[in-house]
Amino acid sequence: MSRYLIDQYQSLEVYVPGEQPRDMQYVKLNTNESPYPPSPAVIDAVTKEAGRLQLYSDPTLMELREAIAGLYGVKRENVYASNGSDDILNFAFMAFAGKGGRAYFPDISYGFYKVFGDLHGVNYTTIPLEEDFSIDPEKYHNLDGLVVIANPNAPTGVALSVEEIEGIVKSNPNNVVLIDEAYVDFGGESCVGLTTKYDNLLVCQTFSKSRSMAGARLGFAIADAGLIGDLDRIRNTTNPYNVNRMTLSAGVAAIQDNDYYMDNCRKIEATRAETVRRLEGLGFTVIPSKANFIFAKSDKVDGGTLYRELKSRGVLVRHFESPRIKDFNRITIGTPEQMDVLVTKIKEILGV
Amino acid sequence: MSRYLIDQYQSLEVYVPGEQPRDMQYVKLNTNESPYPPSPAVIDAVTKEAGRLQLYSDPTLMELREAIAGLYGVKRENVYASNGSDDILNFAFMAFAGKGGRAYFPDISYGFYKVFGDLHGVNYTTIPLEEDFSIDPEKYHNLDGLVVIANPNAPTGVALSVEEIEGIVKSNPNNVVLIDEAYVDFGGESCVGLTTKYDNLLVCQTFSKSRSMAGARLGFAIADAGLIGDLDRIRNTTNPYNVNRMTLSAGVAAIQDNDYYMDNCRKIEATRAETVRRLEGLGFTVIPSKANFIFAKSDKVDGGTLYRELKSRGVLVRHFESPRIKDFNRITIGTPEQMDVLVTKIKEILGV
Repeated sequence: MSRYLIDQYQSLEVYVPGEQPRDMQYVKLNTNESPYPPSPAVIDAVTKEAGRLQLYSDPTLMELREAIAGLYGVKRENVYASNGSDDILNFAFMAFAGKGGRAYFPDISYGFYKVFGDLHGVNYTTIPLEEDFSIDPEKYHNLDGLVVIANPNAPTGVALSVEEIEGIVKSNPNNVVLIDEAYVDFGGESCVGLTTKYDNLLVCQTFSKSRSMAGARLGFAIADAGLIGDLDRIRNTTNPYNVNRMTLSAGVAAIQDNDYYMDNCRKIEATRAETVRRLEGLGFTVIPSKANFIFAKSDKVDGGTLYRELKSRGVLVRHFESPRIKDFNRITIGTPEQMDVLVTKIKEILGV
Repeated sequence: MSRYLIDQYQSLEVYVPGEQPRDMQYVKLNTNESPYPPSPAVIDAVTKEAGRLQLYSDPTLMELREAIAGLYGVKRENVYASNGSDDILNFAFMAFAGKGGRAYFPDISYGFYKVFGDLHGVNYTTIPLEEDFSIDPEKYHNLDGLVVIANPNAPTGVALSVEEIEGIVKSNPNNVVLIDEAYVDFGGESCVGLTTKYDNLLVCQTFSKSRSMAGARLGFAIADAGLIGDLDRIRNTTNPYNVNRMTLSAGVAAIQDNDYYMDNCRKIEATRAETVRRLEGLGFTVIPSKANFIFAKSDKVDGGTLYRELKSRGVLVRHFESPRIKDFNRITIGTPEQMDVLVTKIKEILGV
């Protein structure tokens, strides 16, 4: 830290992304990436765009917004797109909470919510998950600030129903309710349909998981045109060209090739079911997941040990040290072959 | 605007990028893009990366930082890279000025400085350019806040010498001095060499202009490791993966192919000299430029009229309405062929 950094930011805790060690080739099940490559149409689109990089991208992102609007049955003024959904979350904490404003989110959820809260001086409250790691929707009724819920939640994979989300949105008419649907395509129910009914609902999704574009950085939000306009205002005061040409064209191609990606999601769901069955057979407790990862604990080995033993055997999973979840590991669902390696190594560690 | 947007952001004035009309094919001389495409090595690198988009990019940007450090003769801990240099400017206003902090920059310069100042509640002062649009460096000595100078300046193209910048840096030991060198490769002198001597100097550059990558979004900064660490801290609390895989690999390839880009810069300088000669022959006043654009006014037609008449003839240049510069237009230097079109159309408008 230099002596020039202003006081406000000196004590910030940064977000810690999943590790990317380079000492060996790992079976990488720690950052919830898709194990499947982008579709050939996406690769073609990017290749074509590479020869035009000398020109700025379209700051209105019109073609992409129209493609997303078409797929989700909304209008283009209801769609915002950005450099990864983290950008959207960041702007939402700025725009709808801000310094001294209030925000509410689960105690166990995406770690970045606290980071954004701290960054913008938001007065946030974390609401504990239930014993079984589910969210009690009633605890989010009638609040007095921005409500943020990942649905399905991470790192647990547990999902709320659309009816439960609607109850939260309806009971918070003076607050924005942000539903982070990063993992919704793996069996969850999207509440995009509610955005035409409620002007305070902001639904956020990403191309990073179900659309195999974590490395391209593209997130989008669907909401009433008012909220979308607010996000655009923040974008246009920070970085109006924040989505590059290659990512824009990849995004349009991915939307056009939607079936390819939805097929991959079904494959991942099948692999998830099979992995759960095998881990339960080995004595694991696995939280019911609607995401492309599972949250699991062994009855024989503690979470930290399992994480380290797997890593030393070339398999990366994600372990969190916080007290309520330290017995668990979050395991991304990869290909069937990758999950075979995982299960084999776990058997080795357990000595069974 | 929705009723949910917090008060602080309701009156924000957004940055207005150069127009990108789609009603016809224009000779586009309004956003200072390079007229030359990226090098074949860049296109190859992007194409290869497209097949790996399902994996997150390296949040430490290590390979790119090392490449930039190698080219500029600094260490990798002295290099920051980001999603366009606007991101760096934004973070610098946050980190080194902030709400109620002070900042100083010229009254006529990159329009985004004011936008960042307003966004973060910075108490900024604009310092008038001299009559000839030059910057008097002494006016930036011994200040009490962040100093921001584009060198060469935009939209004028006028440059300060390294000695003049050093005087400013030396006389502001308790403030960060940010030198925005977006246009330095077209004949300006970089002050990167001073960063090893002064821990308060932050030099910012971009791949958008001289490296034909406006559409890829990549900026970088060179400074003492302390300032770089501060920028990393802000990045890691907002969007740690803010540079995508394709842009990262394009950036590395562009650095490796540096000669290609520097040759293009020499071509653009030659075209600039020729364009100045021709416009002066038509009675224009052209401010001496070290950038890939010129700032010019006619003795026969006012700036707004010239802009509109050129646009109706398929040539886009950039006109600013503010009083001191409304007689001028900022004209990007394109290929010799594009400048032929410009001059032909100007002759038509002037009736000569």
